[in-house]
Amino acid sequence: MGKLIDSLELPVGLRGLSVEQLNQVAQELRDELIDSVASSGGHFASSLGAAELSVALHACFDTPNDRLVWDVGHQGYIHKMITGRRAQLPKIRMRGGPSGFLKRSESEFDTFGAGHAGTSISAAVGMSAALQRLHPSRFTVAIIGDGSLTAGMAFEALNNAGGLGLKNFIVVLNDNEMSISPNVGAISWFFSKAITSKTSTIARNHFKSLHKKGFVPEFLYRLIDRAEEATQSFIAEPATLFAAFGFRYIGPVDGHNMQDLVTAFQHAKQQDIPVLMHVCTQKGKGYEPAEEDPVKWHGVNPFDRSRGEFHSTSSAASVAPSYTAVFADAAIQIARENPEVLAITAAMPSGTGLDKFQRELPEQFFDVGICEQHGVTFAAGLACEGYHPICAIYSTFLQRAYDQVVHDVCIQNLPVIFAMDRGGVVGNDGETHQGVFDISYLRTLPNVVLMSPKDENELRHMLCTATKYPGPVALRYPRGNGSGVALDAELRPIEIGKAEVLTHGSDIALVCYGPMCQVGLQVAAKLGSELGLTTTVINARFAKPLDEELLSKELPRHKFVATVEDHALQGGFGSAVLEFANDKALALQSPIMRFGVLDRFVAHASQAEQHAANGYNVASIVETLKGLIGGTNKQVVGL
Amino acid sequence: MGKLIDSLELPVGLRGLSVEQLNQVAQELRDELIDSVASSGGHFASSLGAAELSVALHACFDTPNDRLVWDVGHQGYIHKMITGRRAQLPKIRMRGGPSGFLKRSESEFDTFGAGHAGTSISAAVGMSAALQRLHPSRFTVAIIGDGSLTAGMAFEALNNAGGLGLKNFIVVLNDNEMSISPNVGAISWFFSKAITSKTSTIARNHFKSLHKKGFVPEFLYRLIDRAEEATQSFIAEPATLFAAFGFRYIGPVDGHNMQDLVTAFQHAKQQDIPVLMHVCTQKGKGYEPAEEDPVKWHGVNPFDRSRGEFHSTSSAASVAPSYTAVFADAAIQIARENPEVLAITAAMPSGTGLDKFQRELPEQFFDVGICEQHGVTFAAGLACEGYHPICAIYSTFLQRAYDQVVHDVCIQNLPVIFAMDRGGVVGNDGETHQGVFDISYLRTLPNVVLMSPKDENELRHMLCTATKYPGPVALRYPRGNGSGVALDAELRPIEIGKAEVLTHGSDIALVCYGPMCQVGLQVAAKLGSELGLTTTVINARFAKPLDEELLSKELPRHKFVATVEDHALQGGFGSAVLEFANDKALALQSPIMRFGVLDRFVAHASQAEQHAANGYNVASIVETLKGLIGGTNKQVVGL
Repeated sequence: MGKLIDSLELPVGLRGLSVEQLNQVAQELRDELIDSVASSGGHFASSLGAAELSVALHACFDTPNDRLVWDVGHQGYIHKMITGRRAQLPKIRMRGGPSGFLKRSESEFDTFGAGHAGTSISAAVGMSAALQRLHPSRFTVAIIGDGSLTAGMAFEALNNAGGLGLKNFIVVLNDNEMSISPNVGAISWFFSKAITSKTSTIARNHFKSLHKKGFVPEFLYRLIDRAEEATQSFIAEPATLFAAFGFRYIGPVDGHNMQDLVTAFQHAKQQDIPVLMHVCTQKGKGYEPAEEDPVKWHGVNPFDRSRGEFHSTSSAASVAPSYTAVFADAAIQIARENPEVLAITAAMPSGTGLDKFQRELPEQFFDVGICEQHGVTFAAGLACEGYHPICAIYSTFLQRAYDQVVHDVCIQNLPVIFAMDRGGVVGNDGETHQGVFDISYLRTLPNVVLMSPKDENELRHMLCTATKYPGPVALRYPRGNGSGVALDAELRPIEIGKAEVLTHGSDIALVCYGPMCQVGLQVAAKLGSELGLTTTVINARFAKPLDEELLSKELPRHKFVATVEDHALQGGFGSAVLEFANDKALALQSPIMRFGVLDRFVAHASQAEQHAANGYNVASIVETLKGLIGGTNKQVVGL
Repeated sequence: MGKLIDSLELPVGLRGLSVEQLNQVAQELRDELIDSVASSGGHFASSLGAAELSVALHACFDTPNDRLVWDVGHQGYIHKMITGRRAQLPKIRMRGGPSGFLKRSESEFDTFGAGHAGTSISAAVGMSAALQRLHPSRFTVAIIGDGSLTAGMAFEALNNAGGLGLKNFIVVLNDNEMSISPNVGAISWFFSKAITSKTSTIARNHFKSLHKKGFVPEFLYRLIDRAEEATQSFIAEPATLFAAFGFRYIGPVDGHNMQDLVTAFQHAKQQDIPVLMHVCTQKGKGYEPAEEDPVKWHGVNPFDRSRGEFHSTSSAASVAPSYTAVFADAAIQIARENPEVLAITAAMPSGTGLDKFQRELPEQFFDVGICEQHGVTFAAGLACEGYHPICAIYSTFLQRAYDQVVHDVCIQNLPVIFAMDRGGVVGNDGETHQGVFDISYLRTLPNVVLMSPKDENELRHMLCTATKYPGPVALRYPRGNGSGVALDAELRPIEIGKAEVLTHGSDIALVCYGPMCQVGLQVAAKLGSELGLTTTVINARFAKPLDEELLSKELPRHKFVATVEDHALQGGFGSAVLEFANDKALALQSPIMRFGVLDRFVAHASQAEQHAANGYNVASIVETLKGLIGGTNKQVVGL
């Protein structure tokens, strides 16, 4: 028997269907989603949980005339299937396939691009304010998870929406009691309490069972227990909270009951003030392994659907540990010896590797929620009292806390360490997640030290270095695996601002930042074997301060000088070298050839494809240098 | 009769005093503050309102062992007087005198530096988490205004504090129903409603009277009226809101009643969960002109105390209008003709000049509160629907919305205009407010156009240009007055990426960004008259994209090339010119001399002093260039 979805023109075809039929559509889409992600990988558990919600939204609203604004995009796969991208789903996140997030250029149904958390309500307020002038009967609906709602800008937006008294404006709070990992903070518990006592009991038992299995540290468990005690004497409902922001509260609604969803949306559409519709869903719904462990199944590699097991990744490449794992082990090693060292994450314990730190040193660990701003200033407060906090925040997410880095850390010269994972291009996550601006936005600030290691072993020594330095340090390392080098037993500090020469040559100097040293070494080998040229590969280690002595000595003595960085070229590492060479009037024999990310946003693809497209993989660099040596000055990309 | 304060050792001497004596101290300090600010200028109305609160805090807490964390610092002058800086107060904000904000390096009682809004609770949570390990009996008290509480990071911090269940942790909400201008948003109204009905009635009458006088536009008035209607059927109390965050609520407390304050603090100190103490104060309290118009008296120039009038500023210098005023007039002119042009401020209608826009075109104006993040993404939402919003945000405050600039505007290439007032050094506000990083943090982003005008007339044409450009534009202009040039009647767009040559010469090329062109012209004149050299002064207009054609032609033909910018040198405008010259292999005759802000934070002083200290005032530049021409390569500063 054919599928119902195959007989429909989506999404308009949904609008004449019965609740039973809508439910059937949701199940068919969910089923197809499981098959598709099993083959492609991608963000998974959130979209499974939002199947009925996605169908109900497109059935109850006149999309794209009514605007759906999805937060983050993790929950957007079913929405993509409904809006013309069903056939392309198996290519999701791959070069040329659909983005893993929302993207305006991809579909008129993607009204606002996303990737980072907490932006949807703000964008929806803007759209709604516009629509009230242009098309007052249209609806604007923001769909946001309970995790994203902890982001400060979401509160700013709620407050503004209430103040503006927007009509035809609905915020759907998709509450699965998780961000990516279980939520933290007072509000998350408040939501938990608010749900019908049955759901609440289920949640508590689930939490207890996670705790027993060791997923929830004693520390956190006790804290939440205490928070419960603190609030239980007080009769609170989410209605109260959202009413304070000028919203009418509808809920809680069972997000897997199509009839309830449709009824609730009909009700929501009749209100004349902003509506907060609280929908409770189960992350991973409909695929048992994901229901049982939604953290593990949040974003996945390809897997075997029937067995619920991930396909093993190719063994040769995965021998080397990830930078993330090496960072976490080093942080544990250092913090175990030095109780002043603390670790902070903004809702990314597993992404940053700090889940392990949390298990081993719970008293030295803080998860502040999706609150990078607060996390950084919280760290500054800890530093004022003599602690040495490590803020483990992806390069791209540290953008959210830029003012706090400037105003609360660097101006006060406080010893806060920014461990910037995913520094450089990040592969399949695409434009929104590229960590390619941090050198520029940090290098301009006084007081901060910027460093990046050539390999995972040096990362450990650099983290040790940072914990002994009395001011701010930003340590950047990439997504992916290290080089598989041996890890020294003992950690030793590196002198601040000291580079090292990896290979001595006389024709070309390659000044490399971070793991781009590995690229530099391969380029040197090729230039040697193919052209008989000798290359000096310099591991810069520091983008600020530069090793002025070494650069002054090395750069002028080579005919050609090039820099290699996994970062935007404007204002980046190569720019720093250029400023130095210019300001010191070094007598270079030719202009500096700078390799890095070109002046455009980098779309989703593999990291290797992204390096190549920007001309800083081994083959492109070699070709460009060959041209340079041959007298042309042309950057080669895409090899 | 001598003053009571003269007989006390502050702050410890406060701790043995009666409530009557504490009140006397508060009045004496307030009186002295009025005299002092009348002579020096400074932030005024907030500190007046916090006199009793400041005295009560230092009387009830064992400072500095107990930590007071003041938000922003506008309300901190009485605190400064109590903690050793009474004698220096007349020199506040001047070079060598106390900072106008809190500053750790200035006093151990300034536990955390401030200047931007909303950071205090985060810092206090960090300190409290630390103190609970080290000195569990100590208290941490954050003092935050109701305006600052709209900042998203303040919500993030409240949520985290509640989640951590901190003890000995108090947030004092100093509620004067104002940020700098009257507050906006649902929460502010919620607070207003919460206060005893008498206060509430006074507030409403005050609001009505402001409305009658024309200070509150019809638009806003109707909105707030609607918000009131929307919430009045609902019995809400702040206790409910803060309980949702895990706080115990105490209040509202009359912030000018010393007995009430002391009693409330005693009560607050006995709680075993975080406390939110809601204190109601009157901004400007104790000085009638400031009570009547706290917006006008928020930050002031020197004034005549008895007459309540500002001293007229020197007439010659003030003939030229401020960049701020010219921007506002141009925005009105453009928006009047083009209804798609909207103006957005983040709680700074008067600071940005948009108060005038608000009065004249209320339907095209939005004040989102101290919510730069939301403001930018809200603008992006408006842009998605075909509007062309101008986000008027100071350069330093745009740092708070950096991720939104990247993620919501630039990646999506939306036509949002960032009107960055206070671009460059800002004078007396000091380190926290310098707008000297924006070129670096924006230049690295694809899609954005960066421009800055040579004078106030060109500012108008550039704003016109920006409103006709289909992508993001960041337009930067400085604090202070223009050059007094004539203003063209008609606005005309400038070609994107086109520079202009202001003077033609053959010895030196000075590439200037923005109003630094005026410095460049004076330098050229001096080099001519003193050394007989001719200088080509280039008004770059655009930092991105650069005018590659003009630079390619002009730079190589001069023996010396210099860049001048009111911005940090690392990654700034000069760095962009350098990158271009290098990448195109221009055959320059000597290294580029770059003038701008050195690699250190710039303390409070006059703008002229700050330019000189960084070597880019006319005298320093001339001396440096003389040295360069004479064969030395030494930057001269401080002339």
